[in-house]
Amino acid sequence: MDISKRIQIKHSNITEYESSVTSPVNIAVIKYWGKRNSELILPTNSSLSCTLSQDHLNTKTTIRASPKFNTDRLWLNGVEEKISASTRLTNCINKARELRKQLENALEDQEENTSEKPLSKWKIHIASENNFPTAAGLASSASGYAALVQALANLYELPLNQTELSKIARIGSGSACRSMFGGFVAWRAGVDPNGEDSYAECVAPESHWPDLHALILVVSDAKKGTSSTSGMSTTVKTSELFPMRIEKVVPERMKKMEEAIKNRDFNSFAILTMKDSNQFHSVCLDTYPPIFYMNDISRGIVHLVHAFNEQKDSTTGKPLGIRAAYTFDAGPNAVIYAEKQHIRELVRIFMHFFPPATTQPASTYFPDPFGVLQSESDDGINVEKAYKGIVPRFDPGSVRRIIHTCVGEGPRSAPPSVSLLNESGMPKRVKD
Amino acid sequence: MDISKRIQIKHSNITEYESSVTSPVNIAVIKYWGKRNSELILPTNSSLSCTLSQDHLNTKTTIRASPKFNTDRLWLNGVEEKISASTRLTNCINKARELRKQLENALEDQEENTSEKPLSKWKIHIASENNFPTAAGLASSASGYAALVQALANLYELPLNQTELSKIARIGSGSACRSMFGGFVAWRAGVDPNGEDSYAECVAPESHWPDLHALILVVSDAKKGTSSTSGMSTTVKTSELFPMRIEKVVPERMKKMEEAIKNRDFNSFAILTMKDSNQFHSVCLDTYPPIFYMNDISRGIVHLVHAFNEQKDSTTGKPLGIRAAYTFDAGPNAVIYAEKQHIRELVRIFMHFFPPATTQPASTYFPDPFGVLQSESDDGINVEKAYKGIVPRFDPGSVRRIIHTCVGEGPRSAPPSVSLLNESGMPKRVKD
Repeated sequence: MDISKRIQIKHSNITEYESSVTSPVNIAVIKYWGKRNSELILPTNSSLSCTLSQDHLNTKTTIRASPKFNTDRLWLNGVEEKISASTRLTNCINKARELRKQLENALEDQEENTSEKPLSKWKIHIASENNFPTAAGLASSASGYAALVQALANLYELPLNQTELSKIARIGSGSACRSMFGGFVAWRAGVDPNGEDSYAECVAPESHWPDLHALILVVSDAKKGTSSTSGMSTTVKTSELFPMRIEKVVPERMKKMEEAIKNRDFNSFAILTMKDSNQFHSVCLDTYPPIFYMNDISRGIVHLVHAFNEQKDSTTGKPLGIRAAYTFDAGPNAVIYAEKQHIRELVRIFMHFFPPATTQPASTYFPDPFGVLQSESDDGINVEKAYKGIVPRFDPGSVRRIIHTCVGEGPRSAPPSVSLLNESGMPKRVKD
Repeated sequence: MDISKRIQIKHSNITEYESSVTSPVNIAVIKYWGKRNSELILPTNSSLSCTLSQDHLNTKTTIRASPKFNTDRLWLNGVEEKISASTRLTNCINKARELRKQLENALEDQEENTSEKPLSKWKIHIASENNFPTAAGLASSASGYAALVQALANLYELPLNQTELSKIARIGSGSACRSMFGGFVAWRAGVDPNGEDSYAECVAPESHWPDLHALILVVSDAKKGTSSTSGMSTTVKTSELFPMRIEKVVPERMKKMEEAIKNRDFNSFAILTMKDSNQFHSVCLDTYPPIFYMNDISRGIVHLVHAFNEQKDSTTGKPLGIRAAYTFDAGPNAVIYAEKQHIRELVRIFMHFFPPATTQPASTYFPDPFGVLQSESDDGINVEKAYKGIVPRFDPGSVRRIIHTCVGEGPRSAPPSVSLLNESGMPKRVKD
């Protein structure tokens, strides 16, 4: 990437600095659920995720520091938010500023580069946008905080590697630390009370397993669920099965999952992914009062994926093996991991059982960015026949859209042309 | 009860014997899930249930032994079933016959009562009927096997107490052992490989807590669930959280639950009941492939019961406390335990959120056997307002009926007039 990490904007008498980045979302295959320290966001267990391609889902963030700004300001998707209302946001910005301050002090002490600007003293304007609709029910805090921290690091020229930066993203939103890397990313729980050993690291880059694709099924839901922050706190306090997960199950699964990824062993990867998603929802149900994130549509998807994995070759009668894995976060949406060659069949199955709302154009339901449905080859599966009796055909609109994506890279700098701020440092797009 | 346990039927040249009984269903508050021996039906953990009144739900069984019968025959709800097709049924009958044989041998050895007939050699005809529709989705195996074993014991005049009989019922259907008693019944898991210490015993009689009532919400469900036999076997094999439940959680809960029942401490009884229901479904979800028994309607009921328990007194603003508990077996139906004085309010809430199908008469949806809706007093709760936003109002017919019952007595002998067999030993009612 040749794009400079930050740019200078020179006005008649002042110089401002600006940085723009894009950051990815990540979907865990070994789930993070439970904090041992809620202020520093230190988890009860390690977790592991796949970073998803920014071509389909990303957060774009521009931050400008200027001596002429009077106060720190933030716009999310064109709407101004009060920074001071969020302790986590304040903590993240303060941490980056503190590191910048140390850097400025160090440079001053060395009496070199005396022209280095006192950016730590300047106020900042932040504009951030997701390229996916908030209404899609996809968690944007991971990509959002990863983008914020990467943009601050670039703006302040902080001499930190991604693992160090992941600790700053972590204090914004736990799972954001995993979005600081591309590919397959582990968040080590650590044991240090200060969180110095609770960071993300790359287990394998996105180039390691380029055929690993994902389908996100955005599920319609009438009921607003429990927030993950309050949910995980109640689980830690009340679930009597939870200690077993933390002490025994997850440590073993982390090892097995890293092994599966290293070997591109889809069978093991998929079984571990499904089991861990189920166990996360299992400890939610063992919470008092119980927490439910999956609904009847989610469960229909689970049954179909297991049925897909039990299919046999129509000529030889031999089992086709585990070819897809579902995972559910703190909501009813499903993420399906599968290798590229099976995506077409999966999409056909899901489109059959979860037809789009009658008024919805196919292009918004399944935009098909990889052109899997355009393929001339016919896999010859009669979906209706092969999956008869597994689940009923759901009401149109039960699934609102299917997003096809793949494993992708970590945060990247964006060219000046994509800046979200105009000349005077205000957001270019403002929502009415 | 003055009804004789069995009757003699004298024909011109032969004498036949017949016994008729009715038996109750039971609903566990500490759940049975998992076998350590599937042939003897020995459980992985102790469990505890309430026996429900036979006035509302029961199985009636008549068994006749006659020297003129050629073969053992069985009719369930008027439909003949092949006894040999069911190992469990065969095991139960054989066990009772074996005990009868021992009794006959003992009497013969003593050379007294030489007129005692060799019933163990005679074939039997069994007719059994449930007074609740099979379509209601209520498990009938517990009341069914309890009735079978009680009728056999009466017919054969077996000198065994209810705890001894519970071991025979257990080899028919695990939870049937708990239906051998009224009131509050523990099934002790035991440790003996032969199951000699795996039996039911009464923790408190039905008279101990007469105000404890139950509402059964029969929930409509599109998908046929996993059978409990296969489900629990998969859980034992695959759930990594299950050992924690068995080794630690249930033993503690059994003690606390017995304590709560002894003290008629509804608060503790209810919290333990809800937690244990949730944990049972939690280990089902931690099973691979996962097992789901609750659906969106079940979950709506859970949310409403928690909202009911969080209500405050409208004048003092003080919390009204835990006044209801839900529990779910291997299906979507809910059983709500509550004290009598709260049933009316609960029924009003459920009828509001789960209205009957538009064509269904109120008398089949909620027959109101205790006349709770006839009461003149108005509790003054505006259900719509008090529960706004908890759950949406569900489609009419989502709950198919509400059965109101209470804790009741164990198996009882029935008078000869209720015999289900006619003079020639064939069922009086036969289904076309």
